[in-house]
Amino acid sequence: DPKLKIFALNSNKPLAEKIAAEVGVPLGKSSVKRFSDGEIQINIEESIRGDEIFIIQSTSAPVNDNLMEIMIMIDALRRASAKTINVVLPYYGYARQDRKARSREPITAKLVANMLTMAGANRILALDLHAVQIQGFFDIPVDHLMGAPLLADYFLSNDLAENAVVVSPDHGGVTRARKLADFLKTPIAIIDKRRPRPNVSEVMNIIGNVNGKRAIIIDDMIDTAGTITLAAQALKDAGATEVFACCTHPVLSGPAIQRIEDSVIKQMIVTDSINLPKEKLIDKMVQVSVGPLIGDAIKRIHENKPVSPLFENRFK
Amino acid sequence: DPKLKIFALNSNKPLAEKIAAEVGVPLGKSSVKRFSDGEIQINIEESIRGDEIFIIQSTSAPVNDNLMEIMIMIDALRRASAKTINVVLPYYGYARQDRKARSREPITAKLVANMLTMAGANRILALDLHAVQIQGFFDIPVDHLMGAPLLADYFLSNDLAENAVVVSPDHGGVTRARKLADFLKTPIAIIDKRRPRPNVSEVMNIIGNVNGKRAIIIDDMIDTAGTITLAAQALKDAGATEVFACCTHPVLSGPAIQRIEDSVIKQMIVTDSINLPKEKLIDKMVQVSVGPLIGDAIKRIHENKPVSPLFENRFK
Ligand SMILES: Nc1ncnc2c1ncn2[C@@H]1O[C@H](COP(=O)(O)O)[C@@H](O)[C@H]1O
Ligand SMILES: Nc1ncnc2c1ncn2[C@@H]1O[C@H](COP(=O)(O)O)[C@@H](O)[C@H]1O
Repeated sequence: DPKLKIFALNSNKPLAEKIAAEVGVPLGKSSVKRFSDGEIQINIEESIRGDEIFIIQSTSAPVNDNLMEIMIMIDALRRASAKTINVVLPYYGYARQDRKARSREPITAKLVANMLTMAGANRILALDLHAVQIQGFFDIPVDHLMGAPLLADYFLSNDLAENAVVVSPDHGGVTRARKLADFLKTPIAIIDKRRPRPNVSEVMNIIGNVNGKRAIIIDDMIDTAGTITLAAQALKDAGATEVFACCTHPVLSGPAIQRIEDSVIKQMIVTDSINLPKEKLIDKMVQVSVGPLIGDAIKRIHENKPVSPLFENRFK
Repeated sequence: DPKLKIFALNSNKPLAEKIAAEVGVPLGKSSVKRFSDGEIQINIEESIRGDEIFIIQSTSAPVNDNLMEIMIMIDALRRASAKTINVVLPYYGYARQDRKARSREPITAKLVANMLTMAGANRILALDLHAVQIQGFFDIPVDHLMGAPLLADYFLSNDLAENAVVVSPDHGGVTRARKLADFLKTPIAIIDKRRPRPNVSEVMNIIGNVNGKRAIIIDDMIDTAGTITLAAQALKDAGATEVFACCTHPVLSGPAIQRIEDSVIKQMIVTDSINLPKEKLIDKMVQVSVGPLIGDAIKRIHENKPVSPLFENRFK
């Protein structure tokens, strides 16, 4: 039987530790450093010949460095005769360029898929891909986990589901909102952003009833937090008693933290798919770990068991 | 006939301007920026359908960003129906990991070759690859230019070749030194580094006669400048009247500039294969441009003429 080994790269070591703890193995011995000129230097400090390897790495910022760490690690593992190389991507960067929206645009989500496959990845384990279609960008197996049950668990255990309404911040996110609402047994509402005329600011229409209710906005990622903080205000204006926000991937770039701090959002629940530095863990921010979720999936892959259904039951 | 177009990415725009001037075309209209979270955003602002494209980019520091700019640019060009995509790499980063020197090491030079090919590059134009074998890491055409004639031209036009000896700083560089010596019509010498016992510092033995001569050390790249500054001192100690150093690729990371400043090296001649910020252009540093060399090669590729031989004659 091939041995299961987990290696952490640099982007999210705290999560990798939690995953390894769930699986019940120590992290593989390796170091990822930089040469003087900035080139990545990887040392794998134990034999991995014939082993089943899981690499844990989020391609969050600095995205190019984090992606190249994976590429070089896969190359080293393959040349060292690993049996299978599984790449665990708690956050999949470059996912928003997933189609040609304008002429001469790249499709970076597919480029990254091709890169990982070309380097020698045998399987991808991902969490809440920005578009589910990204699974089809790969010709190798992709296991796709969902953060919603975990977020639902938080709201349920903190008695926040009662008299609540789950809100999608845009049309694209309605399926995700519906899923969370199913777990919480609440209705849903949708923010219907429209620009009445060019060069006039957007109007946030709300479809559905939020008056007198606790609004829970859900998105897959929160980046600059512009949309979500405006949506929160619109919900308050429409009579919501309090506004919670949640997402799987706390990208939180640029003005995000300041905007959240200044907003009417009471609490923001995120996962640790992206490692947050201390200064981003403001009082309003609650982080729940996907470590057990991913660790359990790794054990199931190792045992050739189906990955998905159990999670959802587990966190319901 | 496909139209020849040259696009510059961010690592070396001054060189790209010189190349475009030599070719006699304006640089293609494009912008390479960053989204708020650090992901690369490329806009190609003119039609390139059916065109013969040359991308100019050195994969110097920040190497991962510069490499990903190429990957995403190739992806965008390919999806926009470019006829051929030629990648011009004045400096090819990650070249020093070109073999498994130890167990479980990656071979990054090959990984980069595979990445460029997979993305859709049709041809590579490179300059003084760290190892000539890297040409064989590609299954697409590679044209390989040499900086030595250009460096020779500098020494000849400044009357520095007389009573000179060309010195290779290690055994691996003797062929390169021999080439420069042929151009300059001088003898060669070799620095023979040896560590007499473990944990004892290296001894710099000199093979060949340098006494009373102007020593010209040549290397393909100078990174932290440790070896070259020690070699310069050893040459002085052996009676060299003055010491010049030259290389194609001024990587110059970490303590390099301070070491060169403090060393007995009188002048260092480098090319602009890597763009140097002002603070690295110290008085001792002379930069000669590979713009005409690369520009001429691009014209020859466009006209289906052989690329190599003429350069050498041109600069002899
Ligand atoms: N890293 C990024 N940051 C901000 N916007 C992006 C990023 N990557 C892609 N985009 C843009 O976001 C849009 C896709 O967002 P979405 O509609 O949420 O899938 C595309 O039109 C892209 O131009
Ligand atoms: N970016 C780098 N900076 C410093 N050393 C490196 C770098 N990349 C590779 N190396 C090391 O340099 C050695 C190769 O150098 P060379 O003998 O000049 O080809 C290899 O053993 C590598 O471990």
